[in-house]
This record gives sequence, structure tokens and C-alpha cells, in this order.
Amino acid sequence: MDVKELVTEVGRKAKEASRKLTYLSTDIKNKVLKDVAARLREERVFLQEENRKDLEAAREKGLSAALIDRLTLSDKVIEGMAQGLEEVAALPDPVGEVVKMWRRPNGLWVGRMRIPLGVIGMIYESRPNVTIDAAGLCFKSGNAVILRGGSEAINSNIALARIFQDALKAAGAPEASVQVIPITDRAAVNELLRLEEYVDLIIPRGGEGLIRFVTENSRIPVLKHYKGVCHVYVDRFANLEMARRICFNAKVQRPGVCNAMETMLVHKAIAQEFLPDMCEDFRAAGVEIRGCPKTKEIVPWVKEATENDWGEEFLDLILAVKVVDTMDEALSHIARYGSNHTESIVTEDYHRGLRFLREVDASVVMVNASTRFNDGGQLGLGAEIGISTTKLHAYGPMALEELTTLKFIVFGEGQIRE
Amino acid sequence: MDVKELVTEVGRKAKEASRKLTYLSTDIKNKVLKDVAARLREERVFLQEENRKDLEAAREKGLSAALIDRLTLSDKVIEGMAQGLEEVAALPDPVGEVVKMWRRPNGLWVGRMRIPLGVIGMIYESRPNVTIDAAGLCFKSGNAVILRGGSEAINSNIALARIFQDALKAAGAPEASVQVIPITDRAAVNELLRLEEYVDLIIPRGGEGLIRFVTENSRIPVLKHYKGVCHVYVDRFANLEMARRICFNAKVQRPGVCNAMETMLVHKAIAQEFLPDMCEDFRAAGVEIRGCPKTKEIVPWVKEATENDWGEEFLDLILAVKVVDTMDEALSHIARYGSNHTESIVTEDYHRGLRFLREVDASVVMVNASTRFNDGGQLGLGAEIGISTTKLHAYGPMALEELTTLKFIVFGEGQIRE
Repeated sequence: MDVKELVTEVGRKAKEASRKLTYLSTDIKNKVLKDVAARLREERVFLQEENRKDLEAAREKGLSAALIDRLTLSDKVIEGMAQGLEEVAALPDPVGEVVKMWRRPNGLWVGRMRIPLGVIGMIYESRPNVTIDAAGLCFKSGNAVILRGGSEAINSNIALARIFQDALKAAGAPEASVQVIPITDRAAVNELLRLEEYVDLIIPRGGEGLIRFVTENSRIPVLKHYKGVCHVYVDRFANLEMARRICFNAKVQRPGVCNAMETMLVHKAIAQEFLPDMCEDFRAAGVEIRGCPKTKEIVPWVKEATENDWGEEFLDLILAVKVVDTMDEALSHIARYGSNHTESIVTEDYHRGLRFLREVDASVVMVNASTRFNDGGQLGLGAEIGISTTKLHAYGPMALEELTTLKFIVFGEGQIRE
Repeated sequence: MDVKELVTEVGRKAKEASRKLTYLSTDIKNKVLKDVAARLREERVFLQEENRKDLEAAREKGLSAALIDRLTLSDKVIEGMAQGLEEVAALPDPVGEVVKMWRRPNGLWVGRMRIPLGVIGMIYESRPNVTIDAAGLCFKSGNAVILRGGSEAINSNIALARIFQDALKAAGAPEASVQVIPITDRAAVNELLRLEEYVDLIIPRGGEGLIRFVTENSRIPVLKHYKGVCHVYVDRFANLEMARRICFNAKVQRPGVCNAMETMLVHKAIAQEFLPDMCEDFRAAGVEIRGCPKTKEIVPWVKEATENDWGEEFLDLILAVKVVDTMDEALSHIARYGSNHTESIVTEDYHRGLRFLREVDASVVMVNASTRFNDGGQLGLGAEIGISTTKLHAYGPMALEELTTLKFIVFGEGQIRE
């Protein structure tokens, strides 16, 4: 069977499974999720054996220690996957929820009911636990999923999917609800992106290169998670102690992730009072600061920022700092250099807080909180399959609801249109 | 200026306008909409002069009488546009609505706020009133719009946009909120579809060819309105009088539109009783019936259906009829040949009605009602910019809410992530 036939067959089976998944009961779905969790724990030895094949190949290929670490299915990683599934089982089932219902003058009842999207294609890199995390969320929301992980994790991913399928089979649910593309041939990705007949949505997770490739080559809608260039704007009316805490947390708590602060904007009226101590905190934490000329005037030891530093996603202990003359300048800077991910203002002024919430265009806009809260779990969604930075369908962290859509349902009693 | 420069400039100006539109007050938006309505009535003579240029060119090119009719800005069409704008002014403003708000254990308040999508590109055919209808809905929902109508309506469309812009200017709102691409060069469409930097959504309205072209060539997300192959399934437990009324209305009331019935499915248990009278009604109304072999056994005078008739969008007084052995067969037929547009069951049986609502995958699923109700106005949305038959972002009639998205807003009091 050639690559195209193989991928098409995976798609066809996923579509068929998705029809049955649409009305699979919540009880059975939760039973499967808990059963997969139990089987992951029971079959740890089998999983780690399969994982070892990937690890050996990775070492032979000379992959970095960091990549090998991300690839490893340690006891802790397996337990994490199992617990994740149990948490998803405990979340409310979004499918079938009628979010609104109203009556028309002619007596028709019209409602909007939540239904699964259908078939979701996940394209991701190295970490094999994404296989289980994504499969759990897609399954709970009634979607079939086609998983295409990194080639270096192929044996691990196939083993994980087999365990999920065993649980599906045991519960009488369609096995093709969760499928891993069983080959590493790169052409398989191209074929998957052309399966518009069978696949309803593509979610890429990985570096900018992967996401750009998928977006440019897909005939299927793509939910994009581009970079996070997050700003904190310290307003002239900020509580400076609070600002110091928030900015430090936003930059330092975990600098390598998309919701970390990359640029700090500081109103000139409080720059002199705020910047020296703040910069000392950063220096003590090993943060390299690249400041605008005004920042350098106040804190001479910082590096000078270049134009390239604005809008840069450092993903590291590096921070760009700019002093702004007005709140308008801060808003313009964010509009120009931000990536619609997460933006926060620190202020005690009621009107400026509300204005920031209203005017800033980002998936999460905050007043007096760390950007690090842009995360499905932290915001209370219970889980997360990605963060959308484009506005169609979903904007911000995507959880179970974002894997569904609303159809109209109509209860009539013989109405016809005049 | 070449085509690319011109279209890019239109896009850039639209993006700039959209930033201001995001927080334009409802009062000003409504004032503009009512002012445009007044100006359309006042400038009727000017509009009809511009329209005459298009009509003369159309006659010279030998366009059909039907096309020329659709192109004409009659007094009635102008009054219709004006009233449409007044109705949109009376609808609630979706922007700024907070649809949900909750509190996290750490005290953060998290909400989801409705915001405009940004810039919408409308690509449509002949009828110039779409220019005003679409502009009104996009403007009310806080989006800038770039309009690309049919080349045969170019003078009319430019004149209509000018009137809208006059009203925008008078109210101090950004004129570039509503722009018509002022050239008929076909290359302009290709350029528009590549403006992903400035345009957030493309909505094509027109025949299948246009929609396919746009989908295949766009780098920007597209909301697709494909064909409507709508079924009515007359169940064995149907009230046959009601079924006769509903099926007749669904086929005959306006056969040329997407929510008209194209195939009628009839349960075998009531086929003998139902079909003869029903087919007589259709014959009297001039409907050509193409029946399956069992239909022909009962009503010998009908034409024999071929495989091509299932799933065909006739848009005419033609109907395919199939007798099914079971409800399962009806559901399978709809899953195979339906177009996810509108599907209806006629039944008195409670469980079968609910099952149909749950299991059928279509943008509107009905029990005991005519398919002709799949329409934004009829379902109570107040207006409609199209009907989406794909599930991403919107499924079914799209009105003001569907031209928005939800961002997260967070009210904090200094929270940081541990």
C-alpha cells in the first residue's frame, strides 16, 4: 500500500468512527478514559520496551540530551498521562449541551446544540505524551483523532495508541476513534493535509516552522498557535510593589514558554522609581535586559535594545524594556509588536484598566495579573489542547468546548413557511 | 499603481480602520447605519444613474434578462437596503458582551468577551444590494469590510460604498470601515486572497464555482456556504397530513434556494398510503418526480431515478423520492448524500424525533417543520450574511454573533503563578 492509500484509509476509518462517536454516551466515554489510564499503568513495562527502541535510535542519530529527555516515557511521564485522562474523565461532557433555546412567533422552538467537529488531525513534535493527552481530549469531545507525532517517537506512539484502542475495543467503542499514522515517511503529512473529505480540523503543535508548513500546505482549516510575544505594561498609576512581583513572575517563573513576558513597557512617570529595583531583581535572577535609550539612562548597566528586540520571542532569560511616554504609546507598541497571545497592564486606575481590557487585541487580556496564567488549566478550562492566536473558531486556550461546534435544532409542530 | 499595490493598500487601510471600530460605541454605529439608510433614499437618483452605466454595459454584453433584473437598483431594491440597515441598527450590538464569567480559587475573575474578528473580505456575484447588506452587518459587529462584487456591478457598488463612507465621515468614524475594490481586474481577487496580514476572514457568496475557487486559492480562512441538498424523511409514525403540508412547502414554496427539499425519503410502512396523494400534489404544482423502483411501483407515472439524482441540488421543480425500509436506512442515506445543510423528520414518535435531532449531522436539524426555515431571519437571528455548511467557527445561518469571536479577559489583584 503506498503512502497516499494508507493515509486515506486512516482518514476513511476515522470518519466512520466519528459518526458513531457523535452519540456515544458520556458514561462509556468516561469508562474508556479511566480504562486507558489503568492500562497505561499496567502495561508500563511494554510501553517502556517500545520506548526504548525510540531512545536507542535517537542515541544512534546523536539527538541532544534534552530531546532524549522529552522522548522518554519515564514512570513519572506515564503516571502523568494516566492522571491526565482521569481528569478529563471528570470534566463535563460538552456534547449535547443546548447552550440556548428560544421560541419563534410561529411556535417553533429553536436551539443551539453542541456537537463534535468530526475528525481532528494532530501534527506534533517529539513528546509522546501528547499522543495520550490529545487522544483523551478529542475522544471526550466526541471527535475521532488522527495522530502524527515526530518520527523519532514512532514506536512509543504506536504502542500508546494500541493501548487506547484496546480500551475502546473492550468497551465496544469504535477502535478507529484514535489512530496513529503508522509510518514515518514525511509524505504522510502532506497526504493528511489534503484529506479534506475526511478531516475537519488540523491542530499543529510545535515550532514556528512546523506551524508555517502546515498552514501553507493544508486544504483543511488549521487552528494556529503562533508565537507568544507577551507584554506587561506598568502604568503610571501602578502599585509598584505589585508590578515588580507580576513582572518578575511573568519573566522568570518559566522563561521558555509562550506565555512568559518578552517585553516590559514602563510609563515614564514611574520609570525612575520603578526600574532600578526591578532591574536588580532581574539581574539577580540572571535575566539579560535589553533596554531602550531611556531605560539605559535610568539603569546604565543594561544592554542597548535594537529594533529586532521588539516583538522578539526570546523564550529565554532575556527581556526587552521600553519606557513609554503615554498609555497610548504602550497600546500602539503592543498593537504593532504583540502576537495576540497575552497582554497585561498593572494599574490602580479603574478607567485605564477597563480601557486596556477593551482595546488590546489578544487572546487573553489581563489587569494586574501575570501573563503566565494564559493556560487552559489555570483559567479553569480543566485541560488544554493548544492556544489559538488567531480568531476564527477559537481565540486563546482551547479545551473541550473548542473541539465542538453548535448546530441548530428545531422542534416544530407542522410549521410551514408562508 | 498596480493591482497588488492597490489591493494591499485597501487591506492596510481596512486593518487600520478595524482597530478603531473595535471600540466604536453602539450609539455611533447605529447612527451611521440609520444615516446610510436616509442617504440611500435621498441619493436614489444618483444611485440609479450609476446603476444605469452597469445596466447599459450588461445589455451591450448581452447578459440575460434575469441577470439584468438582479443587477437593477429599482426603487424597491433601494428601499429594501435602507430598511435592512434600519433593522440591523435595531439589533443588539454583539461587541463587548461578556458571555460568561467565573472566579478561580486564587481570586482571578476570568471572562469571555465578544470582540470583532477584524477585517472581512466579501466576494460575491451580481446583486449590488449585497454591498449594503454585508457592509451593514460587518459594521454593526465592529468589523471593517472589503467588498469585491461582480464586475458587472462595479459602478453601482462604488456608488453604494461612497454613500456609506459619507455617513461614516459625517459621524467621525473611519471611512475605510467599508471599502469596495475599485477595479474589475480579476487579479484583484487573487491578491485579496493572499492578504493574510490584513484580512481575517473571507466570505464568498455565489455559485459553487466561485466558492471552490476561493477555497482553493485563499491563504485566509474561508467560511463556506456549499450547496443545500436537503431531505425530508417521512417516518412510519408521521402524521401524514402534516407530512404532506411540510413536504409540499419544502419543495414548492421557493424551489430555487438552498433550503428547499431536494430528496424526500418515505418509510415503506406508510408509502402506500402517503405517496399517491403527495405525488398528485406535486404533479399539480408542476414538480417532476424521480422515484426509486418502490416509488414507481406505488406511483407508476413518476420518472425513474438514477444514481445521480441522490445528492443532486436541483434548485428547480424536480424532486427525488426514495422509499426506505427503516429509519436507519434514512439516516444512512442522509449521511451519504446530504450536504450538512438542512434535514427534517416528520414523525409523531418522541424517541425517533429526538434520535434524528441527535444523530443527523447538518447545520439545522428539524422535527416536524419545513426545511425552508433554515434562514437567519426565520430562526430569529435578525439578519444573515450567509449559511455555513462547515463546522469551524460557524455552522448554519451566520448573523452578527458569527462575525465576532471571544477573547478572555482577566481581572486580577496582583496574582502570580506559583
